[in-house]
Amino acid sequence: MAEPKQERATRTRALILRAAAEVFDESGYSGASISKIMNRAGVTQGGMYFHFKSKKRLALAVMSSQQTFIDFPSEGAGLQRVIDLTFHLAHELQTNPLIRASIRLAVEQGEFGVRDDTAYQDWVALVETYLLEARQRGELLPEVDEHDFAVVLVSAFTGSQLFSSVASARADLPSRIVLLWRYLLPGLTPPRTRASLRVEPADRTPAT
Amino acid sequence: MAEPKQERATRTRALILRAAAEVFDESGYSGASISKIMNRAGVTQGGMYFHFKSKKRLALAVMSSQQTFIDFPSEGAGLQRVIDLTFHLAHELQTNPLIRASIRLAVEQGEFGVRDDTAYQDWVALVETYLLEARQRGELLPEVDEHDFAVVLVSAFTGSQLFSSVASARADLPSRIVLLWRYLLPGLTPPRTRASLRVEPADRTPAT
Repeated sequence: MAEPKQERATRTRALILRAAAEVFDESGYSGASISKIMNRAGVTQGGMYFHFKSKKRLALAVMSSQQTFIDFPSEGAGLQRVIDLTFHLAHELQTNPLIRASIRLAVEQGEFGVRDDTAYQDWVALVETYLLEARQRGELLPEVDEHDFAVVLVSAFTGSQLFSSVASARADLPSRIVLLWRYLLPGLTPPRTRASLRVEPADRTPAT
Repeated sequence: MAEPKQERATRTRALILRAAAEVFDESGYSGASISKIMNRAGVTQGGMYFHFKSKKRLALAVMSSQQTFIDFPSEGAGLQRVIDLTFHLAHELQTNPLIRASIRLAVEQGEFGVRDDTAYQDWVALVETYLLEARQRGELLPEVDEHDFAVVLVSAFTGSQLFSSVASARADLPSRIVLLWRYLLPGLTPPRTRASLRVEPADRTPAT
């Protein structure tokens, strides 16, 4: 039975986005080309132009799809969930070319004439949701503004991953995130909550 | 009297660096060209190639000259000096195309195939010096490591200016720096010191 048209279009779009992210990750924006991406995705010129009219639009779409490239850990709650998110994202940046490309494009967007903070705002919104949960659990200091702190955290994480990427190709990113939390937690949470938090990467040793 | 050769070479190199920074600021790395930079600097092809053999080397030199593009405020001491530095740098990013280009190249260096953290390390070293002074003045909490905090601050500042540049072309950068300090100071300094610090841009109203 033939695949319904709408479904096929959605699948093709996702294929193209993945291929584009891989090519941008390998070659950067200026080194990537529409034809390279078409070949990687295995789509025709018609299929490509139906979804994306230019390399710039492709880059914008990859840039704005950051959260769709990741599986989020479902366990944890409140502040622990925010901390786990930062370590999870650090691990994804080390191992997942799609999220790496997406974040790289967001950082280097000036180079292709774009100024769009959607990617940053999406992370701020996600962190803010987790922080509102932390607030309800009584984990935040009274003077903390959830939105403001989310902006500070997303900024600090962005700079940390950038510095780490030039210093060590992100090998030292987890230890930089440990440091970040060491200096952010005292202004965020009371000492008794702080003592109960796990500020380290989740154990990824596969069960034997 | 003719200018001594050595002096002229130094002056030409500085001229070229300024012109390159201006052109990179306006056009980004891929939009800039050696000939455009030569014209702007008013140097011959021979003069250019004596100092810089390629656009990439020029970009590296601009990227590593960040601190030479700024006049640093000389007043202030210890922790206040660190805070003042961040607001001063925010103001420079808003108004000085040389530092803007230099930082932009450091951020977008992946786009031209470079991985060099000198620019970041220079800022870490400067902040660490100020923090060691703050330590001697008794302004830091005992558990603070001056180098670690300098890394965190440089990272957080980098991410803040990047987020601000896409959100508001850096118009809101000073208020983001205020937020950053709000959440960093509790982990850095005791309450009595915190109360004595001025966490806002210096007054730039010209005397009348």
